[in-house]
Amino acid sequence: MTYCIGIRVAEGLAILADTRTNAGVDNVSTYRKLRLIENSGDRLIALAAAGSLSTTQAALERLRQGLIDPESGAVETLAEAPNIYAAAALVGRALRQSRAAMAGLKAEDVNFDATFLVGGTIGGEPMRLFLVYAAGNAIECGAETPYLQIGENKYGKPILDRALVYETPLMEAIKIALISFDSTMRSNLAVGLPIDLVIAPAAAPLPATSRRIDAEDPYFHDLSDRWATALAHARAEIPNPPY
Amino acid sequence: MTYCIGIRVAEGLAILADTRTNAGVDNVSTYRKLRLIENSGDRLIALAAAGSLSTTQAALERLRQGLIDPESGAVETLAEAPNIYAAAALVGRALRQSRAAMAGLKAEDVNFDATFLVGGTIGGEPMRLFLVYAAGNAIECGAETPYLQIGENKYGKPILDRALVYETPLMEAIKIALISFDSTMRSNLAVGLPIDLVIAPAAAPLPATSRRIDAEDPYFHDLSDRWATALAHARAEIPNPPY
Repeated sequence: MTYCIGIRVAEGLAILADTRTNAGVDNVSTYRKLRLIENSGDRLIALAAAGSLSTTQAALERLRQGLIDPESGAVETLAEAPNIYAAAALVGRALRQSRAAMAGLKAEDVNFDATFLVGGTIGGEPMRLFLVYAAGNAIECGAETPYLQIGENKYGKPILDRALVYETPLMEAIKIALISFDSTMRSNLAVGLPIDLVIAPAAAPLPATSRRIDAEDPYFHDLSDRWATALAHARAEIPNPPY
Repeated sequence: MTYCIGIRVAEGLAILADTRTNAGVDNVSTYRKLRLIENSGDRLIALAAAGSLSTTQAALERLRQGLIDPESGAVETLAEAPNIYAAAALVGRALRQSRAAMAGLKAEDVNFDATFLVGGTIGGEPMRLFLVYAAGNAIECGAETPYLQIGENKYGKPILDRALVYETPLMEAIKIALISFDSTMRSNLAVGLPIDLVIAPAAAPLPATSRRIDAEDPYFHDLSDRWATALAHARAEIPNPPY
């Protein structure tokens, strides 16, 4: 399993992804799921992947080699995508083609579905964030619900629904997302540290910053402890039911 | 969708269930999912249902009419179950038969799966709690994880994992379960008030008490407000990430 959150608030863009993959609980590994495909000059393209690792790796390979435009015959790559919408559409085509190539394996009763988050900015356009579905279609993150999730999204969704609005400052939004990861990791062993993080403030020039939050990260450790303590206090403050 | 929690702590047993059913978001209704099948003298059998409403109603109808024991030919009912384990096994047979009867409809590509929580005590035995799966098999709630969930279990699971242990007092456990419902209802429209509740303290004589918590319930309203306020405080107390 996997858990990824993309955030698009007024102050900018952030994407977080865990690094645990598993083929059954007896086969757990660490894989990078969040990638900065482009991050220089005026081009930022960040990709986070969830679902079948073979499908997402195949899609990334197609993107590296370039996809042939069925009309012009030209080879299209993310490096030449004119804007982030076009980049998300190209990721969708790569994903659809990768799944189609695996259709012959369907008899094995394995699920080859996968999804991507695609976020960034190209050529000075405003930062945008997309969720690319397994079928290759996409939705864009909007101001009313300023986040998108892929993978194991339910455990950590209530905190996002309660706390995250478009006006939330970017670093506070990342804090909320890390609380969401903390809740998810407690309830589902298939989501685990380290967490990869890309931060792209809208006001700051590129390149965006990225970092890996591992089990020794003092901030995440402190956040996890404080949250557990605060929740215990909050529970204790509520009186027992009168029923 | 549905959300039900069964709790078996040292002080006794409680089962909570919402009342919202839906066949698509454009067809939402209120149905009772938690039933006190027996609750007098020394017999307590509480049933909570999740999944296909047609399957669970068909299973309840079979239980009302009684199931024929394939060996003895006798008609078995919950009213004559010798212990709560036998009651859970009978619910499992009714569920399996109901699903089998719908097998011919499978071509419609509809999911007829359903699950039950079965809790109670018969003839003075210790209270026990079971989860009956769609296939008719069952697991029993144990002291290490003193709760069982059916239906939309993920949104509300982190709070249970953090807070609930076998030694948690019964009314505090019910409080924690109501917080779990509050989180679930915020993130999933398919789970909604009223919540039905059965409380059976191990030390108190039967009958168990039951009540319905609706939108006007002052305690639940207060719990929801306090929890939202406390979470907002807890978030504010955690510093922003230094990344």
